[in-house]
Amino acid sequence: MISYRKELWFNTSQRRELINITPQIQQEIQNSGIKEGLVLVNAMHITASVFINDDESGLHQDFEKWLEHLAPEKPYNQYKHNTYEDNADAHLKRSIMGREVVVAITQGQLDFGPWEQIFYGEFDGKRKKRVLVKIIGE
Amino acid sequence: MISYRKELWFNTSQRRELINITPQIQQEIQNSGIKEGLVLVNAMHITASVFINDDESGLHQDFEKWLEHLAPEKPYNQYKHNTYEDNADAHLKRSIMGREVVVAITQGQLDFGPWEQIFYGEFDGKRKKRVLVKIIGE
Amino acid sequence: MISYRKELWFNTSQRRELINITPQIQQEIQNSGIKEGLVLVNAMHITASVFINDDESGLHQDFEKWLEHLAPEKPYNQYKHNTYEDNADAHLKRSIMGREVVVAITQGQLDFGPWEQIFYGEFDGKRKKRVLVKIIGE
Repeated sequence: MISYRKELWFNTSQRRELINITPQIQQEIQNSGIKEGLVLVNAMHITASVFINDDESGLHQDFEKWLEHLAPEKPYNQYKHNTYEDNADAHLKRSIMGREVVVAITQGQLDFGPWEQIFYGEFDGKRKKRVLVKIIGE
Repeated sequence: MISYRKELWFNTSQRRELINITPQIQQEIQNSGIKEGLVLVNAMHITASVFINDDESGLHQDFEKWLEHLAPEKPYNQYKHNTYEDNADAHLKRSIMGREVVVAITQGQLDFGPWEQIFYGEFDGKRKKRVLVKIIGE
Repeated sequence: MISYRKELWFNTSQRRELINITPQIQQEIQNSGIKEGLVLVNAMHITASVFINDDESGLHQDFEKWLEHLAPEKPYNQYKHNTYEDNADAHLKRSIMGREVVVAITQGQLDFGPWEQIFYGEFDGKRKKRVLVKIIGE
């Protein structure tokens, strides 16, 4: 069994942003030399997500509106977490979208259906944050 | 380390349906010959889920009502994604229910608690769609 | 490849409770002797969660209020599942918070960002329930 580890860094210009990281993950799989196994991709911060969905801008606007409806950013004082911080909503949004994905690696490639793409979901950005890529296999 | 891969195909008669796939996953574990490891089971489509919960019909009706409340199918024009398609709600419902499960394999069996069952959750059906089963271990 | 398995038992005094299990998971990684790999931590019951977020009491109160808003416990008769049971809301809450986490192990440690902590989320407690820890690696 081989294992491989890499951190990816992000610093978004907006509080909330969705970034397609599929090419970077595929590149790390090639760097690892692993042909058959699993790749874990997870946010290392608790106000961000890694998830798989469609790279379609209309859908991304729908996600923004929907997450704001389910866990609104404001008013900040509706959340007990918001004493020294203002990001309680980001913790909740990330709970819906998920912390991590585990993806199969087959013949050295992400083993994906036709429209699957991996996204970094930032819900409290404008600062440096990390994603962990851990690959195990052979 | 051994790895094993299998695709399962589904074509539901209704737009939304929950299908218990536990026996099929257990069969694939036997086919793989792997006794100790992990099995990843994921939807290969972004409007479907794989999740673990109870095989109880009342609960399944509760899921349907609850998901329709949190991410209603209609009116279609409430979603920007729905220009050529009408399935934005399915992308959102799948985000709540999750894309994948990772389950431990112990002594050649799904290592489950008393009521755990694996479901394929279809939210935009009436067409052929796939689930990926990837097993690694020894 | 080495594999390691352990069950952790919980019996909460309240219906809903969040318990930080990070030290116990780190201890099991040491017990396993595995230095590089993946650890799967999952609820073995379908009315409980394992998730990763912040160990901050204000946020935990926000989670309680938010989950009660999205999937209220009462009135019990709003759910078809609640015939012999009263825990349909717990099945829904666990669907939002997730069944499991998969965490990278690097140099014998949980490979975590600065604030990541693993929680057992109980949504139908006051009885003995289990979490499974399965570790694979080398």
